[in-house]
Amino acid sequence: MTAGSVTVIGLGPGDPRYLTPSAGAALAAATDIVGYGAYVDRAPLRVGQTRHASDNRVEVERARFALDLAAEGRCVAVVSGGDPGVFAMAAALFEAYEADMARWPDVVIKVEPGITAMLAVAARVGAPLGGDFCAISLSDNLKPWDVIVTRLKAVLAADLVIALYNPISKARPWQLGEALKLAATERPADTPVILARAVGRADEAVRIVPIDQAVAAAETADMSTLVMIGASATRLIARAGELPFVYTPRSVGVRP
Amino acid sequence: MTAGSVTVIGLGPGDPRYLTPSAGAALAAATDIVGYGAYVDRAPLRVGQTRHASDNRVEVERARFALDLAAEGRCVAVVSGGDPGVFAMAAALFEAYEADMARWPDVVIKVEPGITAMLAVAARVGAPLGGDFCAISLSDNLKPWDVIVTRLKAVLAADLVIALYNPISKARPWQLGEALKLAATERPADTPVILARAVGRADEAVRIVPIDQAVAAAETADMSTLVMIGASATRLIARAGELPFVYTPRSVGVRP
Repeated sequence: MTAGSVTVIGLGPGDPRYLTPSAGAALAAATDIVGYGAYVDRAPLRVGQTRHASDNRVEVERARFALDLAAEGRCVAVVSGGDPGVFAMAAALFEAYEADMARWPDVVIKVEPGITAMLAVAARVGAPLGGDFCAISLSDNLKPWDVIVTRLKAVLAADLVIALYNPISKARPWQLGEALKLAATERPADTPVILARAVGRADEAVRIVPIDQAVAAAETADMSTLVMIGASATRLIARAGELPFVYTPRSVGVRP
Repeated sequence: MTAGSVTVIGLGPGDPRYLTPSAGAALAAATDIVGYGAYVDRAPLRVGQTRHASDNRVEVERARFALDLAAEGRCVAVVSGGDPGVFAMAAALFEAYEADMARWPDVVIKVEPGITAMLAVAARVGAPLGGDFCAISLSDNLKPWDVIVTRLKAVLAADLVIALYNPISKARPWQLGEALKLAATERPADTPVILARAVGRADEAVRIVPIDQAVAAAETADMSTLVMIGASATRLIARAGELPFVYTPRSVGVRP
């Protein structure tokens, strides 16, 4: 039997207009679509394809399942929101693969990039990632909270724009507030903070608040929210009847 | 006269299979395409569209030109490689706009996200951005070198994966080597460094080297190269006859 393949696919922020043609072709070629239920539902289904939806918190098991299907000769698409390499399924797949490689000797593994949430959010509001920036997951399922705090302090001191992924969940209710309180001690009070939920989807909700009001604003954030903390130079341009633009100038201490 | 619009569009890494349908539609709707020559050439041209190619180093002038065209009622696409908000044209456009807003009172400004280089490179080699990461431009045209060094030291100490944009040019020949030397003092000698040129294009060239050999490997890097420095946990999975996979486990100091 010829082994099949696993392609880890980024669906982008939700609207199919942000799905790349390359990812769309990989989805169409799949015999099996594996992933968290909400993402599997989002993939267009064609005749002959099988969907395998699972709970969101079993990434390595899901990866093993996908590799097993591929070893049987199937052409498997593992779907992620955004980009699969950014706090999503790609790293979990390689973790599972490396731990038991002999089990799937001939399976072909590929990754299809996608528009990750911070890029969609940035485009929605202007150009907040115009300078140096970082992406940090606030989930302490996979790293100790003190590592997260140390990293936040380092990037705050270095004045990077900060995109916070996985900011909050029922099991992690207080971490986002703590991170924003820390940020407020290191950045000017009027530094813009963006709280963006479901950008590019029907239920999109984007708020832009000064950092000294961010803790209160974050009370309604959820798992689908991307939080972005401006650098000290990040600016607003007011607009009548619309959200302001937010952008970070490219220059630091140099006349452009 | 009704004012027109400026849409800053991310073309992605080069291959049209990575151009989103949303960006493709915005390109098709444009009357005028403005940008650096190589990017303007990459946009599919339809009858009635006008191309305005310019030198790469005059971003703010180009932005003003695009806004002036839009004020005349044109529907202008400003094209960038990758994502326009990541070290590309979007921030330059908002800088130009804010400096002289009364000149373009009714122009509509939008941004279309794209697959930025680090996401394309990451997907090409595995999942090197699987943990927390940052993106830093090495260009000291727009910030002093000592700021860049301070930022690199901070993110090295925080053990983030580091994507270096604008790593080298004829006018900036030594900065990449200095950055890699600094990184080599802070990371294990076998930490993977990825040097990826033109991913997704016909002349693609990807190398993966241990950090203690990265300075030598970087001698052939150029403006089109994206350099990615692994975190201390970033790993290789060897493959016969192909580049190894590179991935960063999601966990830090916690059993997955």
